[in-house]
Amino acid sequence: MAMKAAVFEGLGKPLAIREVAEPELAPGEVLLKVENCGICGSDLHATEDGVFLQAEGTVLGHEFAGIVAASADPAVPEGLRATAVPVNACEACRDLGTCRDGLGILCPSNRITGLALDVPGAYAEYVKVGAKQVVPLPDGVSFEQGAMVEPLAVGLHAVEKAQIPMGGRVLVIGAGPIGLSVAAFARLAGAGRIVVSERAEARRAAASDFGATDVLDPGAVEDVGAAFSAATGGPPDVIFDCVGVPGMIQSCIDLSRPKGTIVVVGVCMKPDEVIPIAAILKELKLQFVLGYVESDFARVLDYLGQGRIKADGMVTDRVSLSELPEAFEALRRPDRQIKVMIRPGG
Amino acid sequence: MAMKAAVFEGLGKPLAIREVAEPELAPGEVLLKVENCGICGSDLHATEDGVFLQAEGTVLGHEFAGIVAASADPAVPEGLRATAVPVNACEACRDLGTCRDGLGILCPSNRITGLALDVPGAYAEYVKVGAKQVVPLPDGVSFEQGAMVEPLAVGLHAVEKAQIPMGGRVLVIGAGPIGLSVAAFARLAGAGRIVVSERAEARRAAASDFGATDVLDPGAVEDVGAAFSAATGGPPDVIFDCVGVPGMIQSCIDLSRPKGTIVVVGVCMKPDEVIPIAAILKELKLQFVLGYVESDFARVLDYLGQGRIKADGMVTDRVSLSELPEAFEALRRPDRQIKVMIRPGG
Amino acid sequence: MAMKAAVFEGLGKPLAIREVAEPELAPGEVLLKVENCGICGSDLHATEDGVFLQAEGTVLGHEFAGIVAASADPAVPEGLRATAVPVNACEACRDLGTCRDGLGILCPSNRITGLALDVPGAYAEYVKVGAKQVVPLPDGVSFEQGAMVEPLAVGLHAVEKAQIPMGGRVLVIGAGPIGLSVAAFARLAGAGRIVVSERAEARRAAASDFGATDVLDPGAVEDVGAAFSAATGGPPDVIFDCVGVPGMIQSCIDLSRPKGTIVVVGVCMKPDEVIPIAAILKELKLQFVLGYVESDFARVLDYLGQGRIKADGMVTDRVSLSELPEAFEALRRPDRQIKVMIRPGG
Amino acid sequence: MAMKAAVFEGLGKPLAIREVAEPELAPGEVLLKVENCGICGSDLHATEDGVFLQAEGTVLGHEFAGIVAASADPAVPEGLRATAVPVNACEACRDLGTCRDGLGILCPSNRITGLALDVPGAYAEYVKVGAKQVVPLPDGVSFEQGAMVEPLAVGLHAVEKAQIPMGGRVLVIGAGPIGLSVAAFARLAGAGRIVVSERAEARRAAASDFGATDVLDPGAVEDVGAAFSAATGGPPDVIFDCVGVPGMIQSCIDLSRPKGTIVVVGVCMKPDEVIPIAAILKELKLQFVLGYVESDFARVLDYLGQGRIKADGMVTDRVSLSELPEAFEALRRPDRQIKVMIRPGG
Ligand SMILES: NC(=O)c1ccc[n+]([C@@H]2O[C@H](COP(=O)([O-])OP(=O)(O)OC[C@H]3O[C@@H](n4cnc5c(N)ncnc54)[C@H](OP(=O)(O)O)[C@@H]3O)[C@@H](O)[C@H]2O)c1
Ligand SMILES: NC(=O)c1ccc[n+]([C@@H]2O[C@H](COP(=O)([O-])OP(=O)(O)OC[C@H]3O[C@@H](n4cnc5c(N)ncnc54)[C@H](OP(=O)(O)O)[C@@H]3O)[C@@H](O)[C@H]2O)c1
Ligand SMILES: NC(=O)c1ccc[n+]([C@@H]2O[C@H](COP(=O)([O-])OP(=O)(O)OC[C@H]3O[C@@H](n4cnc5c(N)ncnc54)[C@H](OP(=O)(O)O)[C@@H]3O)[C@@H](O)[C@H]2O)c1
Ligand SMILES: NC(=O)c1ccc[n+]([C@@H]2O[C@H](COP(=O)([O-])OP(=O)(O)OC[C@H]3O[C@@H](n4cnc5c(N)ncnc54)[C@H](OP(=O)(O)O)[C@@H]3O)[C@@H](O)[C@H]2O)c1
Ligand SMILES: [Zn+2]
Ligand SMILES: [Zn+2]
Ligand SMILES: [Zn+2]
Ligand SMILES: [Zn+2]
Repeated sequence: MAMKAAVFEGLGKPLAIREVAEPELAPGEVLLKVENCGICGSDLHATEDGVFLQAEGTVLGHEFAGIVAASADPAVPEGLRATAVPVNACEACRDLGTCRDGLGILCPSNRITGLALDVPGAYAEYVKVGAKQVVPLPDGVSFEQGAMVEPLAVGLHAVEKAQIPMGGRVLVIGAGPIGLSVAAFARLAGAGRIVVSERAEARRAAASDFGATDVLDPGAVEDVGAAFSAATGGPPDVIFDCVGVPGMIQSCIDLSRPKGTIVVVGVCMKPDEVIPIAAILKELKLQFVLGYVESDFARVLDYLGQGRIKADGMVTDRVSLSELPEAFEALRRPDRQIKVMIRPGG
Repeated sequence: MAMKAAVFEGLGKPLAIREVAEPELAPGEVLLKVENCGICGSDLHATEDGVFLQAEGTVLGHEFAGIVAASADPAVPEGLRATAVPVNACEACRDLGTCRDGLGILCPSNRITGLALDVPGAYAEYVKVGAKQVVPLPDGVSFEQGAMVEPLAVGLHAVEKAQIPMGGRVLVIGAGPIGLSVAAFARLAGAGRIVVSERAEARRAAASDFGATDVLDPGAVEDVGAAFSAATGGPPDVIFDCVGVPGMIQSCIDLSRPKGTIVVVGVCMKPDEVIPIAAILKELKLQFVLGYVESDFARVLDYLGQGRIKADGMVTDRVSLSELPEAFEALRRPDRQIKVMIRPGG
Repeated sequence: MAMKAAVFEGLGKPLAIREVAEPELAPGEVLLKVENCGICGSDLHATEDGVFLQAEGTVLGHEFAGIVAASADPAVPEGLRATAVPVNACEACRDLGTCRDGLGILCPSNRITGLALDVPGAYAEYVKVGAKQVVPLPDGVSFEQGAMVEPLAVGLHAVEKAQIPMGGRVLVIGAGPIGLSVAAFARLAGAGRIVVSERAEARRAAASDFGATDVLDPGAVEDVGAAFSAATGGPPDVIFDCVGVPGMIQSCIDLSRPKGTIVVVGVCMKPDEVIPIAAILKELKLQFVLGYVESDFARVLDYLGQGRIKADGMVTDRVSLSELPEAFEALRRPDRQIKVMIRPGG
Repeated sequence: MAMKAAVFEGLGKPLAIREVAEPELAPGEVLLKVENCGICGSDLHATEDGVFLQAEGTVLGHEFAGIVAASADPAVPEGLRATAVPVNACEACRDLGTCRDGLGILCPSNRITGLALDVPGAYAEYVKVGAKQVVPLPDGVSFEQGAMVEPLAVGLHAVEKAQIPMGGRVLVIGAGPIGLSVAAFARLAGAGRIVVSERAEARRAAASDFGATDVLDPGAVEDVGAAFSAATGGPPDVIFDCVGVPGMIQSCIDLSRPKGTIVVVGVCMKPDEVIPIAAILKELKLQFVLGYVESDFARVLDYLGQGRIKADGMVTDRVSLSELPEAFEALRRPDRQIKVMIRPGG
């Protein structure tokens, strides 16, 4: 059987809508009809020069939800509304992990569905996933919300690793999908004050729907630290870097209170400069985080189902598969988009 | 009253043995007759060009023990054998601290006795300390051991912040007084394997008295990570950087296991380069540490009194006050010294 | 100067409204004009036979807010709207505590304002407190809300000690003021499901304003554990006993999941029976909790000021000082009251 | 093939040495020739009236080591010197566990090898175990030490759950095999002072080989708490109940410092009485513990191989299979035995 998919055809070329073979199921695998799939910043990196560049023929898309169209696992019924954890760790890691504690996404041989040639993603009519990765959508959670679970799980995980004290002061730097997710979960986890620092006005405006108690524009204030303290009464207990550019970690060190925690979510791929003595004189903790663990998806969905996380405000654009290549290129010079959502059937 | 002290007289000049006024006591203060005082690497930095350079007239020495010669506090009797915590935090921080949790050495207005002009140190016959900073030596703990409590407390504190899992694999990089202290407390805290990496042969030899289960010479092995795994069965759970030179943090990142902890004890004063994505892909935690808290001194002394920490092997040289200036200059190009101990009365 | 107060005149007698001397201020003390004071279950115990019975002449009332009428401390201005921490720990504990970690309410020589003869409480026109205990009300927080901070702080503290995992399943047993406070903070701290078990219908109805995602009536369901699992998908991760009667701890043990946490907030003064092997076979943790720490008050107030805790629904009755004695006696056989609030000026 | 085994033939009857069929191996199973097997208190309970009574025909013995005599798993070679984790959790729990965090011994459907009819134990010439449960003995670790790993792992696990602060004061009540194991690991984990309370003189004498810094006889001192403080300088931070009789938990509550931790290792099968308010006024934590996790065995063995735990002093008696029934009955009225070791081949 054939299906439509957006195929990456090489550096500098737009995605191409092609007929490709529908994935075939081995035992324990499941086919999802894709209802929604988000475009992630990683997808852009995957088509740009650098360490993340993918092979020609790759089908991107790791943030998706849909309906089980076929199942080769008795535990997953056809017709189920679901999303899936796009992590394909090796079998040893899935069960036990290095040091027997379950590596999951940290598994050195892990591949992400939609970010590797051999595990094609959901910029397509159908996507194949392992049955154990399937996570059902609760009643009342839309497919679009289901396609937001993956970036939201990044926020949940980052917040969990941060161990924010109840009532604590939090600074979130960057209000892309990841920063907004982090802010929402910091709020949900009981942070007292959540200040989001972001240059783009539309994103600052979105931030208050995502838990921010204050926003600031780093380009407009003279001193981010002073502005933060003015808004909250003191320096941040926890800072989340949700940008990932050189210099950002040192900024966080400079802004933190003594004994503070800095959570590095933003992925800076270039060498970066820090001044270690500045971090020593404050006894800081730098916690780097990656992704999520499998059980995060169900937790995010429970919060979504209860209406305690409101993800909808993040979706600024909705495109069909045929509109995708153009929308994708547009994101290389983003404007006021936050999350662009693909509806392959739409 | 006058006493002899070794006075720093400015950049490029050797310490000078001078008659200076004995410190005068305000209420709540105590005068210790110095029996032993260690020379610390920080003392050398305090006499070198850079951010740590002290004013002319400074009397160094923050690692000391002696006998209470005079006391303006009823709680501290004359004749008491004691060491003292050389931290002079502001009064607010001593009691409550920023955020009410006791900053101590992290207090922004803290000065270290023996590392500031107005709180002269123990390169002298007498040193003045606050009564609350005095910590008595248990029976059986010598003055020389008492003078080692300060650097040992750095090791205890670093190990405590590391939260080494019982049976965990530990790498200690650098076997100066700090690395040796860290190794000793890592052992005492139940680490399974403690590998010390150090270039100097004499220090590697000392390391096994300080808890190391293995040593390695980073200049002699091709691959420190491979050598570590060969000795212990896998990559380190916790790495202590006890060197503090540019590049060391990134080395630690490269050597760590996924979900590992890196404790940065070594003080690198220059900007340093790290590759954030390498730390993200392993979800590492970087814990920077500074000094100790007040209660650490009593704990170190209890372990010393029980013979569970054997500090003596660290002292390679003992000098009188008059021999100090020459010994101090010699340490600018260290040879086989580990800890040089001053005996002002000797 | 004289003022009106409700005085406890001995076992079996109603409180008596008397003219008593206004408290006199020593340096560092502050006089609050009481605007609101809550009646606490402990106040009833303080007038009943048993270990909590207070001396004749005691003025009760430890949950209060008002206006600074006079101040013998420059840091606290007259006119300030404030509540106060009713803990009078000894000076050693305030600063350092046993083991130097700050005992506060756990100080063995602590007395609670309003629960001891020599520190009269706020069932009066004025109440005296230490200046350091004063906590200002933010704008927008009413005096009535301010008088709720004390029981809310019990909830915040219990939840903080519980370390509820994000998305965790929580069972709160008992929906008095304490159970409702616990539920509200469990929600605020990110618990996924919060089920409140309570017999009284009015209190069950209040519970959903205080964070409950479900309620159950232990008298109406056959099996509380089964009802909990049906509502949430599995057994509780954390259980809060907010009742404090014999047998309740063993019920919690039976209801918990393996590796669960039971937080004992309810104060059972009688010997109680547990079956240790039942707790061993599940490796449970029992965390007993008492009160709060000083900094909890400011955190509760910040949440109240932001509208993230809505305490008002707890107040079912409002009485003047002259109506207090009768209302107090009525609470010995409570009906549909939750929190009865006194307005000494009303 | 037949082999000799000691078979439980019913209440009130001594164990009988019988010829029974050698276990047959399914794929993934391994046959160990038993070199040593310890007698555990649980084995006695398994032959007494009560909840632990086993069926007739049961072969006891869960603390054993030997040589792989036959293997139906390629990963485990014949001739390997090994012990094994006697936990037979269900397959779901082994991998993931309730709440996906690995229940192991807490699995409700778990059976212990040697404590259930269908998984016969090592009071026999041969014992069958799952290949994944096999843990090799390092060089230099004897079979007798290997047979001590199981009770030592209980000590390691209890200590790990206790989170003893470095330098902390620890009280271990009871110096049977479990109390001695706990003391040894408390020492190894950095406890400052470890006081063992035990009535039997020989066991008190053994305690100092197992890490105790002091011992006390609860029958000889007037006040255990006062004796503890006299020896260590204050009340215990952590107390381990390694006895398991009614009244012991309340004793621990009374002896603890405020904010202390009580680890309940001793298994009290009868209802027990506690006074909750006493635990509330100190904000205590009661941690119940059961067994160990799989990875504990390898950690214990690494410590044994390094000579950091010295288990040999625990073995007071060594018997052959034919001497076992008499030695077993003698343990019903123990005298000066600590651990009795069976040598089926001896
Ligand atoms: N660790 C993980 O597991 C994980 C998972 C997913 C994503 N990530 C990483 O997380 C980062 C954020 O992802 P995203 O999808 O949210 O990206 P994004 O949409 O690019 O958002 C980043 C935002 O930060 C803003 N920004 C840039 N410099 C700033 C500054 N100095 N102060 C305040 N705001 C600043 C950007 O504004 P402008 O556009 O105006 O510059 C942008 O709005 C990326 O590095 C991504 O690779 C990490
Ligand atoms: N955080 C704190 O609170 C605190 C407190 C005190 C001290 N410190 C810092 O801790 C560090 C160590 O202090 P110390 O007194 O022990 O200093 P030290 O005597 O200089 O010891 C450092 C040791 O590391 C060795 N080393 C250098 N490069 C190495 C490498 N690549 N691999 C392995 N070993 C290497 C050095 O050998 P070579 O001599 O052959 O190079 C030297 O033996 C310093 O940076 C100091 O400032 C921190
Ligand atoms: N640890 C601390 O620091 C601290 C501080 C303050 C208070 N406390 C204690 O916390 C407890 C609660 O205080 P409170 O002021 O909220 O008391 P409360 O108003 O008496 O509330 C207790 C509630 O529990 C209900 N209840 C009784 N048995 C129950 C059961 N088996 N299942 C479910 N609900 C049941 C009661 O209903 P009925 O009235 O129908 O029985 C009542 O509504 C008291 O023991 C108090 O002493 C502790
Ligand atoms: N939680 C777990 O996973 C686990 C695992 C294994 C064992 N256990 C339990 O741990 C407990 C200890 O096991 P064991 O094999 O070491 O038992 P054991 O050999 O019976 O040791 C208990 C010791 O405690 C002494 N003792 C009794 N009352 C005492 C008191 N008031 N103060 C001080 N010492 C007292 C006993 O002395 P006398 O003989 O003079 O009374 C005996 O020496 C048992 O309850 C066992 O069931 C638990
Ligand atoms: Zn993504
Ligand atoms: Zn130093
Ligand atoms: Zn109260
Ligand atoms: Zn056993």
